[in-house]
Amino acid sequence: MMVLITYDVNTETPEGRRRLRQVAKVCENYGQRVQHSVFECVIDTMLLKKIQHQLAKIIDKENDSIRYYYLGDNYKYKVEHIGVNHSFDIEGPLLF
Amino acid sequence: MMVLITYDVNTETPEGRRRLRQVAKVCENYGQRVQHSVFECVIDTMLLKKIQHQLAKIIDKENDSIRYYYLGDNYKYKVEHIGVNHSFDIEGPLLF
Repeated sequence: MMVLITYDVNTETPEGRRRLRQVAKVCENYGQRVQHSVFECVIDTMLLKKIQHQLAKIIDKENDSIRYYYLGDNYKYKVEHIGVNHSFDIEGPLLF
Repeated sequence: MMVLITYDVNTETPEGRRRLRQVAKVCENYGQRVQHSVFECVIDTMLLKKIQHQLAKIIDKENDSIRYYYLGDNYKYKVEHIGVNHSFDIEGPLLF
């Protein structure tokens, strides 16, 4: 199944910027980055639980937000894109 | 149906920052902002086409990106959220 992970991490502090990199790294391990804070992951339920567990430990629930959207198995026709298709350097500068 | 709109707008220039506000304003007219650049819109196909037309005219296709995810009518169980639930001031500072 396709799971879309979107997140907002508060980067006003050095800790926030560290959390942002950690969240992106976890998502990068399991999915494809399609926008700065949007990842598409084709995974099973077990892997989803693993990712959710890891991300829940990283974020600051008072300041950060993660959303999971379940697009099912038949996801190819559920996504449309216009504009540039970035390839993301996870170590690169935090441009938004 | 629920349509998720996610976007990345390059804000390195004043024009980019203007495009970002315009994109957010269009999305705000038709949906609920759930993260800084993520909107949930419960709309019909006609309204979707109208939004897509407006957004396509705003963005710079060489530098910006918009993605549409179609979650269908039965979307309530397709979304999960952890962390803070911001209420967004569209006129506020561009915090990411």
